[in-house]
Amino acid sequence: MPRSSGPVDSPARLSLISRHLAPDYPLNTPYTVERHPDNIDTSLLPKTQTRALTTDANSANMSTQPEHPTLLIPGPIEFDDAVLNSMSHYSESHVGPGFVAVFGETLSMLRKLFQTTDPSAQPFVLSGSGTLGWDLVAANLIEPGEDALVLSTGYFGDGFADCLKVYGANVTQISAEPGSRPQLPEIEKALSEKKYKLLTVTHVDTSTGVLSELKNLSELVHRVSPDTLVIVDGVCSVACEEIDFDAWKLDGVVTASQKAIGCPAGLSVSMFSGRAIQAFQNRQTPPTSYFASMKNWLPIMQNYEAKKPSYFATPSPQLVRALHTALTQIVAQGVKERFAAHTAASDKIKAAVAALGLKQVAANPDDQAHGMTAIYLPENVKGAELLPKLASRGVVFAGGIHKAIAAKYIRFGHMGVSVLDPSRGHVEKAIKALEEGLSECGYQKA
Amino acid sequence: MPRSSGPVDSPARLSLISRHLAPDYPLNTPYTVERHPDNIDTSLLPKTQTRALTTDANSANMSTQPEHPTLLIPGPIEFDDAVLNSMSHYSESHVGPGFVAVFGETLSMLRKLFQTTDPSAQPFVLSGSGTLGWDLVAANLIEPGEDALVLSTGYFGDGFADCLKVYGANVTQISAEPGSRPQLPEIEKALSEKKYKLLTVTHVDTSTGVLSELKNLSELVHRVSPDTLVIVDGVCSVACEEIDFDAWKLDGVVTASQKAIGCPAGLSVSMFSGRAIQAFQNRQTPPTSYFASMKNWLPIMQNYEAKKPSYFATPSPQLVRALHTALTQIVAQGVKERFAAHTAASDKIKAAVAALGLKQVAANPDDQAHGMTAIYLPENVKGAELLPKLASRGVVFAGGIHKAIAAKYIRFGHMGVSVLDPSRGHVEKAIKALEEGLSECGYQKA
Repeated sequence: MPRSSGPVDSPARLSLISRHLAPDYPLNTPYTVERHPDNIDTSLLPKTQTRALTTDANSANMSTQPEHPTLLIPGPIEFDDAVLNSMSHYSESHVGPGFVAVFGETLSMLRKLFQTTDPSAQPFVLSGSGTLGWDLVAANLIEPGEDALVLSTGYFGDGFADCLKVYGANVTQISAEPGSRPQLPEIEKALSEKKYKLLTVTHVDTSTGVLSELKNLSELVHRVSPDTLVIVDGVCSVACEEIDFDAWKLDGVVTASQKAIGCPAGLSVSMFSGRAIQAFQNRQTPPTSYFASMKNWLPIMQNYEAKKPSYFATPSPQLVRALHTALTQIVAQGVKERFAAHTAASDKIKAAVAALGLKQVAANPDDQAHGMTAIYLPENVKGAELLPKLASRGVVFAGGIHKAIAAKYIRFGHMGVSVLDPSRGHVEKAIKALEEGLSECGYQKA
Repeated sequence: MPRSSGPVDSPARLSLISRHLAPDYPLNTPYTVERHPDNIDTSLLPKTQTRALTTDANSANMSTQPEHPTLLIPGPIEFDDAVLNSMSHYSESHVGPGFVAVFGETLSMLRKLFQTTDPSAQPFVLSGSGTLGWDLVAANLIEPGEDALVLSTGYFGDGFADCLKVYGANVTQISAEPGSRPQLPEIEKALSEKKYKLLTVTHVDTSTGVLSELKNLSELVHRVSPDTLVIVDGVCSVACEEIDFDAWKLDGVVTASQKAIGCPAGLSVSMFSGRAIQAFQNRQTPPTSYFASMKNWLPIMQNYEAKKPSYFATPSPQLVRALHTALTQIVAQGVKERFAAHTAASDKIKAAVAALGLKQVAANPDDQAHGMTAIYLPENVKGAELLPKLASRGVVFAGGIHKAIAAKYIRFGHMGVSVLDPSRGHVEKAIKALEEGLSECGYQKA
């Protein structure tokens, strides 16, 4: 049933959600928020249909999903039951009060996830895949003939460069060898040689598991080239790596629903600074896309967040409800706690990989992502041989996709419920499968 | 569990699905296919999780969805339970064999829905809303500076024109008064005055309920301007209005998942002719979008249909599974039967509207859509007064959106399960609510 949007403003509502959520709605995680048994406003809880919410975070097998291979690729990831239940919400109008309130809260909660309190920052949630975020940047924040500096740490950095070129940007690319990342001195040199409208960096390149530094990079850009917008591809980092949007003075972070946020695929999710919106509004030429046009979407997103129905193109109520449920859990847990949990799980996984005598694609520990691990295969083991052995143990890893080294490595995604709910045992199961699978392939640690 | 893709080719597989589906999987419709009790290949049935499939198409209340207002707007529409259950399918790899087979079958079944057997025709299913289909046309099938002729019967015809302009097309628009449509003689005149790269027509404009003729229009274009591509916006027509892609020599039909197809919103669905693909391949300039680029998507769609994993951007496994379930039902029923069922329901609704003494926005009976009815309000009744009275009776209609007449009419969507499953009683409920609501507003038939 639609619920009315009361006089409570967004931050207060979020605090309500975060305060009230815990008692009836335990998170799939050991990192619970403080519990207040009083005053439960059940209208704020995600609606579910026939499957019961799980009620004991420590039960041995809490998921009501049918048995299936454990998906440990770097996105899509395994889902929390409540998120998945939200996907089968009955049909409702995309401009009805119930859905408008849910969409509005979803946008407000994204501000918490990105750690921004600046009212000029603007969240967007569009039907599309993560790739659509690149179009959103390329069609709105840069004009044909303007310069972009793209830092590439793999397949996805190269993709962002391709997208910018399609929309007419002049792209200068600084690419690192597979497993490393462009260093600040060469970036500083490039920034001082030309005035760039924007710089893009892939926070975690899903093809290599390389983590880029954002804080120092953004400081450098603001010091050397203060007008250049700092744009982050956060597809494989948002909700598992620290992103402090305001403090780090970021201008744009684009991501997707299906990675660490833990929602099914199908939504492009992004946050832009007031400065980025200003750059869009100061364009000399109109946006060069229709479906990805901020001109079309900006008033819609502002209206939804103000709980006013609005239409440019039909959103997906089911996906937005699932995102709402995922964000409600994230906000209730607290983003800092979420990042810490991913770091702890990643440290454990990387230690286990090292104990097996395996090397990571990301060579330097400081450059290693916390939501995935790209692992070089031992010399005589092929991915095509090992991956089916993992699958026969109920574990799905991904193969390599960086063309220079594709056959030489595999990828292990460890995000969301798989690391936040220890009762699922996913991490242990995966490490054990990896150990046994390698051994079956004839590998023995040297 | 992933299921292996056997040696059965697509048409043969479709025939298998259509032949085997009925016994265990009754459609929510009185128009059942012939039933064969032998040889059930259950691997071909849509997978569900905890909610049981309904088993009796004639039971009084077959839906397992919680009670909720009946959504009778012109999209999104009410869902069949099995379609909705597919939305909460557990997580799976977008390049794993199970999902690749489902995506491949989905594309093959679209050929049946559009009634094309021409192997050069190409279906696309992309994450996005219906609007993305316009970008797909504008960014790939026409180059900047080329001419497009847009036939407009309302808000959505105007939108298609705007989209084409964003991508640099020179647009000539023939617009009709609200409630009517451009006539063939003026279209013929326009076609003989200038050489157009493409012509677009909104099959049913959701803002007015005006149905455009496609068969005669396409014949005219092929006679007068044979090189001009015939592009149809079928967002509010595909799966409820007859579309005979091959016989009518159409070059493109773009639609969305959430209208008569009966799947939740979030997918752009389209079919293009071999001639349209050729026009794309003969471009002098590259496509002017990245996310909507046929260059990026064409090989992906071809690979998925050939059951080969492929990646450009992550599809939404849950939405594609829901579309697969919806198309499986549509193909099992037969598209001709589906169109006939919508026409029968529409005739009944329009007779009831006339019996209430109300006029439709689409004045000429030949121009009236079969999946929706746009109804002029009586002189002293306001939509803002009537719609809540319908809502209090559990029926959700939409208000007007054509800016010239927005306050003067309401819209009643009658597509998919609401007309195909008489046991739901949606049509009767809506007509009764309309009658009572009008009466409560003080209206009496003159």
